[in-house]
Amino acid sequence: MSGAATDGRLARGERTRAAVLRRAADIASIDGLDGLSIGRLAADLSVSKAGVFAHFGSKEELQLATVHAAAERFAAEVVVPAMEAPEGLARLVALYDSWLAYSRRRVFPGGCFFFCTFAEFHARPGRVRDELAEVRRRWLDAGAGLVADARDRGELDPECDPQAVAFELDALGMAANLHDQLCEDPSGFDRAAAAMRARLRTLATAPHPALD
Amino acid sequence: MSGAATDGRLARGERTRAAVLRRAADIASIDGLDGLSIGRLAADLSVSKAGVFAHFGSKEELQLATVHAAAERFAAEVVVPAMEAPEGLARLVALYDSWLAYSRRRVFPGGCFFFCTFAEFHARPGRVRDELAEVRRRWLDAGAGLVADARDRGELDPECDPQAVAFELDALGMAANLHDQLCEDPSGFDRAAAAMRARLRTLATAPHPALD
Repeated sequence: MSGAATDGRLARGERTRAAVLRRAADIASIDGLDGLSIGRLAADLSVSKAGVFAHFGSKEELQLATVHAAAERFAAEVVVPAMEAPEGLARLVALYDSWLAYSRRRVFPGGCFFFCTFAEFHARPGRVRDELAEVRRRWLDAGAGLVADARDRGELDPECDPQAVAFELDALGMAANLHDQLCEDPSGFDRAAAAMRARLRTLATAPHPALD
Repeated sequence: MSGAATDGRLARGERTRAAVLRRAADIASIDGLDGLSIGRLAADLSVSKAGVFAHFGSKEELQLATVHAAAERFAAEVVVPAMEAPEGLARLVALYDSWLAYSRRRVFPGGCFFFCTFAEFHARPGRVRDELAEVRRRWLDAGAGLVADARDRGELDPECDPQAVAFELDALGMAANLHDQLCEDPSGFDRAAAAMRARLRTLATAPHPALD
């Protein structure tokens, strides 16, 4: 086989893998990671079960790959756009605004992929839970890192605890996502955005336009 | 059949029903309401499948009865003890302290029954989701009612919005429960308790021992 033909086959394989994982994350945001099956994904995407199986090998591998793919989509939709805001407090507020906007526009059809799967695996030890816990820790660390930046730039109280603040801001967004989905009431997004700003105003060393 | 024999049979039936629902709520707190099966419950409790089926008739009825039973257990474990605190701000703080203690001691083995099942059904319209949404609204209303009491007694800012405050306090407890279960890190309970007190101090009209 020529190099070009091999390259073409590899590229097709990558496209199939990406399409399977995109569909898998959409399904899991509604029905959970246990709602995934290789047969259902193959049928949904009109590819062979053997073709899907070749990529993942087991349901657990499929679940882990789906978590990875969802984390990349989350980073692209939530974190990357926020990095365009100026460093410091403005970027911190942009991160959580971006997260609320992602949840509100339902990038994943069942709302936040991670809310659904965190709850599904929270009491089920194993590799999938370990991976989800790592995603949660990375998300809290990202928020805490921006709190620390704003603090170190003199915009927030030098005594504030970045991990504690990130925990609180995360809690508000999670509750807004749940309220929108479970109670079909999107008012929690505005409530969460207002509460996040009010919390940061208690820590701000001076008025800041991002907190108005 | 004598009246006494009928009474005895009814009492046994009620005891079986209560035992099934208690076990069902424990299972659902780990594996979700979809993890329930009449066969598994019958086997776990050494009763006949027909006996369990006679009480519920369908999986959906079993799920709904499990939600009701879990809500009663939640009320008995969380709300009733808090009502012993003096009215006003002390009772408001007692309610959320009681909730954090319930989650920390894992009254349900998978942590808060409702966190797990809210997430499971959040994107799945139907009778079970409607019932769960109603439980969430009642819980938020209970918190908001105590915020309003404290406000009306002059202990909290007369301008504060009870529903918004209840939303924020709930968010913190939910995040603590998730963090304990998913990341095996109970530090969120102390974080949540401290953040709840800090939030209420911003609204309090005077120092209050419950907020120390």
